[in-house]
Amino acid sequence: MFEKILKNVHEKTPLVHCITNYVTVNDVANAILACGASPIMADDLKEVEEITSICNATYINIGTLNERTVESMIKAGKIANSLNHPVILDPVGAGASKFRTDTTYRLLDEIKFSVIRGNISEIKTIYTGSGKTKGVDADVSDRITEETLDEAVLFAKNMSKKLNSVIAITGAIDIVADENKAYVIRNGHPMMSKITGTGCMLSGIIAAFVAANMENKTEAVTAAITIMGLSGELGYKKIEENNEGTSSFRTYLIDGISKMDIDTLKGGMKVEIK
Amino acid sequence: MFEKILKNVHEKTPLVHCITNYVTVNDVANAILACGASPIMADDLKEVEEITSICNATYINIGTLNERTVESMIKAGKIANSLNHPVILDPVGAGASKFRTDTTYRLLDEIKFSVIRGNISEIKTIYTGSGKTKGVDADVSDRITEETLDEAVLFAKNMSKKLNSVIAITGAIDIVADENKAYVIRNGHPMMSKITGTGCMLSGIIAAFVAANMENKTEAVTAAITIMGLSGELGYKKIEENNEGTSSFRTYLIDGISKMDIDTLKGGMKVEIK
Amino acid sequence: MFEKILKNVHEKTPLVHCITNYVTVNDVANAILACGASPIMADDLKEVEEITSICNATYINIGTLNERTVESMIKAGKIANSLNHPVILDPVGAGASKFRTDTTYRLLDEIKFSVIRGNISEIKTIYTGSGKTKGVDADVSDRITEETLDEAVLFAKNMSKKLNSVIAITGAIDIVADENKAYVIRNGHPMMSKITGTGCMLSGIIAAFVAANMENKTEAVTAAITIMGLSGELGYKKIEENNEGTSSFRTYLIDGISKMDIDTLKGGMKVEIK
Repeated sequence: MFEKILKNVHEKTPLVHCITNYVTVNDVANAILACGASPIMADDLKEVEEITSICNATYINIGTLNERTVESMIKAGKIANSLNHPVILDPVGAGASKFRTDTTYRLLDEIKFSVIRGNISEIKTIYTGSGKTKGVDADVSDRITEETLDEAVLFAKNMSKKLNSVIAITGAIDIVADENKAYVIRNGHPMMSKITGTGCMLSGIIAAFVAANMENKTEAVTAAITIMGLSGELGYKKIEENNEGTSSFRTYLIDGISKMDIDTLKGGMKVEIK
Repeated sequence: MFEKILKNVHEKTPLVHCITNYVTVNDVANAILACGASPIMADDLKEVEEITSICNATYINIGTLNERTVESMIKAGKIANSLNHPVILDPVGAGASKFRTDTTYRLLDEIKFSVIRGNISEIKTIYTGSGKTKGVDADVSDRITEETLDEAVLFAKNMSKKLNSVIAITGAIDIVADENKAYVIRNGHPMMSKITGTGCMLSGIIAAFVAANMENKTEAVTAAITIMGLSGELGYKKIEENNEGTSSFRTYLIDGISKMDIDTLKGGMKVEIK
Repeated sequence: MFEKILKNVHEKTPLVHCITNYVTVNDVANAILACGASPIMADDLKEVEEITSICNATYINIGTLNERTVESMIKAGKIANSLNHPVILDPVGAGASKFRTDTTYRLLDEIKFSVIRGNISEIKTIYTGSGKTKGVDADVSDRITEETLDEAVLFAKNMSKKLNSVIAITGAIDIVADENKAYVIRNGHPMMSKITGTGCMLSGIIAAFVAANMENKTEAVTAAITIMGLSGELGYKKIEENNEGTSSFRTYLIDGISKMDIDTLKGGMKVEIK
């Protein structure tokens, strides 16, 4: 399955329209290029319609929200929906401020997302606040461990059914779920949380992978997360060999994405179906 | 010629005012520093006049346009013109949206640019839309190859005469032209298109090189492009040796700019006069 | 003293709210993570109150000022003051434009800063223009050398007393002063001025160090500056060994921050009390 998914990305080289934060935007662009796709960053209301239209996917990330770009996100998402392009949401910091939480709910009300990727806290914020269950607490632990994994998988499947989106919850253990099945990924390295942008980059790569694999969205998301995690493992190995630190790790992480092939992926992937 | 050009940059250490996009702004600043000059990023209308005045060149890049910064670009460009500072335009994505195209035409109407650098598509958009020939297609191929090179050189010379700017068209083969002569540069490596920002960085370096070499603008642009291309070749060689990927390539590319000297340049340059 | 300071940062992992420029924001985030703390970038007026409240320190940097974010800076600073969180000011380019200078004075009028860090030119701009002495020239040289050091130390102590802030003046020789004592730091490497963002990163690290060491603010600032300088020395050594340039230097600088431990610090620090 992953072989076909990788091949589709490299052959179709999808164009991803990104409206994202200014902290990690350069990493996002380089990660999307590294995985074999192309990014376009454009956030002005005057041009998002045209830009979205020439792209194959739309990636919305609320990492450094401001009122100007929220309107651009809404417009881009609606156009992408009308064109049946996949739209990916990264709700960075949803729950941390009313502005972020409210904006997330508004985005969910006005746009149909193919994939929502966040940490467990962000995803729970979405679950409890959006749609009909507003105000109801998500019945799932705040941290995904081997003990709470089954509970979290069930939660992700239910949420996928409720929102009609693929749900990706990333952390020490990653879960990707649609309403029928879930993949559990145990790749990655703790140092990924010692650099900024791993989540943002990952969501950008997911957008590229889904755009090139619309028939297998859940598997495309799973492949993207596995590649990111495996690149983190390989990057950590390299900085250990060279006695380097977090910034070299960031470089090698993106290097890993750019050099990933099916043999490396098959040799290192730790993916389980639940 | 290149020896004197390099020496002037290092001795004069020009200060370049940049109004550029937030995707690659960090790379632009580091590339300008690497080549021996200094950058100042400032885009608020309240301060662009003062900042432009203390600088030696103004670099305008429309990579992530928004309405706020367009007015700052216009103002900075006009002040720079009045002070006889060189003004460099990088029309990123001109042709991809009406907003970008219209802004490019407005910039060209209100500001005299010393150098315009873009890919063939952006440059053709400018040619067909600006000034008296609006609506007339540029009579040149969409891709510069050995077969279409002479045609493209002629086009660049004509365009230089029409706009009274040095025209730099970059791609697999690069062309730098004024109305009388053109330089063809065959340095560079395809991996330069696998990272974001090579074009933006290059335009920033061009601004520094022209500021320090106002008597030889066309040659200064040619030197900057040759250095960038050669640094790309050296960077690719290094990642091959180390089995690294695109992010290491980006690092080595900027390293190469910072370490470039006249012997390396003379040993590796592939420049032809047409 | 430094052992306890480092330990506090690693154990408390302070959360730093940053309103900073878009040129070096990614480096700032990665540097704060590298030193053992966590950054949150948020600059919209709608959310700064909530974000500041959940953080342990507020870092304000005027590197790419615009009217929208100035109001967010004022609001965040006031909230942080009311919560007794440390607030750190990096007055990038104060003195270079009226907008920057006036904004700096307004920030100083409305917010109590725990630490102000800048180069001698920025610090002098603050001294001469703020409070009662507006218009009076700072009686100190424009460059700190061994010859002008005593004079500069006295100036820094006086300024600390006047503004009730720890004053950090960085350059070839660094000075950290409160009204009673000053530390002189001779770590660092000239190549730190050949990349963008060393000052911005340093101020972010200072915010983290002060947040975790509120009982020893002056020493916390001194530790942060020493770590940055020493990481620069180690980074330069590494690029010399590998024959690399300025971009590799940036990587190794952040690597050094992420790997800094008390033995390395004690072995390399060059700190004197004045």
